[in-house]
Amino acid sequence: MKGALTLINGNIYSPEEAKISIFDRGFLFGDSIYEVTISHDRKLLFFDEHLSRFQRSAKLIGLDLDFTKEIITENAIKLLQAFNEENAYIRMIVTRGIDEIALNPSNNIKQNLIMITKKAPFYESILYDKGIYLNLVERKRNDKEALDPNAKSGNYLNNILAIKEAKKSNAYDAIMENQKGEVTEGTTFNIWFIKNKQIFTPHAKSGLLEGITRAKLLEFCRNAKLDVQEVTCTKEDFYNADEVFITSSTKGIMPVYQLNSRVYHEKLSDNSITKKLMNLYNENVKVHLNETPYIF
Amino acid sequence: MKGALTLINGNIYSPEEAKISIFDRGFLFGDSIYEVTISHDRKLLFFDEHLSRFQRSAKLIGLDLDFTKEIITENAIKLLQAFNEENAYIRMIVTRGIDEIALNPSNNIKQNLIMITKKAPFYESILYDKGIYLNLVERKRNDKEALDPNAKSGNYLNNILAIKEAKKSNAYDAIMENQKGEVTEGTTFNIWFIKNKQIFTPHAKSGLLEGITRAKLLEFCRNAKLDVQEVTCTKEDFYNADEVFITSSTKGIMPVYQLNSRVYHEKLSDNSITKKLMNLYNENVKVHLNETPYIF
Repeated sequence: MKGALTLINGNIYSPEEAKISIFDRGFLFGDSIYEVTISHDRKLLFFDEHLSRFQRSAKLIGLDLDFTKEIITENAIKLLQAFNEENAYIRMIVTRGIDEIALNPSNNIKQNLIMITKKAPFYESILYDKGIYLNLVERKRNDKEALDPNAKSGNYLNNILAIKEAKKSNAYDAIMENQKGEVTEGTTFNIWFIKNKQIFTPHAKSGLLEGITRAKLLEFCRNAKLDVQEVTCTKEDFYNADEVFITSSTKGIMPVYQLNSRVYHEKLSDNSITKKLMNLYNENVKVHLNETPYIF
Repeated sequence: MKGALTLINGNIYSPEEAKISIFDRGFLFGDSIYEVTISHDRKLLFFDEHLSRFQRSAKLIGLDLDFTKEIITENAIKLLQAFNEENAYIRMIVTRGIDEIALNPSNNIKQNLIMITKKAPFYESILYDKGIYLNLVERKRNDKEALDPNAKSGNYLNNILAIKEAKKSNAYDAIMENQKGEVTEGTTFNIWFIKNKQIFTPHAKSGLLEGITRAKLLEFCRNAKLDVQEVTCTKEDFYNADEVFITSSTKGIMPVYQLNSRVYHEKLSDNSITKKLMNLYNENVKVHLNETPYIF
């Protein structure tokens, strides 16, 4: 938390000062939503898309959002300007607010808007040149009929238990199946595989967070006339794949060199499709950033 | 939150002062556990059992609890003495602590112990004489392979979505099925049904929180040689039942007069088994309270 700056309902606080009531439903029940994005050279990446997903998460947890896109943007820009870091990470949280302790929320409570910024995370070059080692863990992903993974909420124990399980095998992170044995996603990222030059990613109906980077890469691939498909898939599809990679808002595209005992490569080849997609993605990000109105 | 008193890491705070860092994992991810119990005449109800379940919840979310039963008891007694209310509600929370923002917790973080006390909730006599109207909602209970309902954690969105759904039909609260269509439990209570004088409650393997009141009632029934069974059951078993009731630590035994469109009674009969169980439970509670060492 050092080197961070925060905003609570319009006011800026140091990390040490940044506190919330223990009666806030976000603290008591995880009754909140969040979004994370980063900036490059003071330009926010896919910010409008993140704001739209914020609204979608709110809807999925039955929260009638008090804050418009404009208000959220205003607050984010205010915090980022105060923090004054060109390449920043920003986390935006809305809680259902402070209330009497009861599961059913009162009608008249006031939502809290909280933001945290810090330097954008730095990932060592080996994570892009070679990649990461992932574990497909025993822990199953939340079922969408119980709690839709498409809601980016304050309920992340499912993902925490998954990454803790993966860390026991010294893996970098975890991916999870749903109850039917379909691969869904990682703890904070989407996953993809390539087979015979075709690009695949688990279908949203398997129950996963439709990441902004996932949506953007699908769009960029389709624009480039690449063969890309959302499919219902199993771990066997991943073990039999030629290449595997992940997407995330903070990491972009990152190759996977190993999944459980299946090793894909020692070093990512320049001729790999993953490498081509990394270039495609980075080029499109540059174009997007040049055009974004979300500048601070 | 008015009329409450709180304790954070040994220090007592008014509700207005009671705040926690927004970097606490309990706030960011719902990465916490909790317990609730009540006191009668300054005697804590089944307190040792609640402390044991606290430890069980910790284990289920991979939390190596920093606080012994003795330390938690000491803090609870301190808060309850300061609050000075004979019939109190107490909520005890342990969060994994303040950390860098990352799903995988650091090794060296310090857990936070938080408690909230207020007057024990008062339930109108009609809720015991007639009972409550429950909705079996569409929302499914969290699957135990994703997030075990037996962990009383800071992830309660599943339950919140269920009670919000039930309130749309003007029901008092909700009960949920698992993915297989087995009835599990309510949002904050266990559920029971009676058929041909036999007493049934959903089996723990269906995925539910094994409530302290549930465990105690099973014990009291068995001691009284009553026919009671934990079973895998469906909504049809509840619709076809003669009587239905719930158990909870704050409510004790409360009858259900209606479940969806199935009406069980207008007023609970003195000859009903539910009424007999309420008496059995209350008698045993009195004996327990007279013997408890948890007095403040």
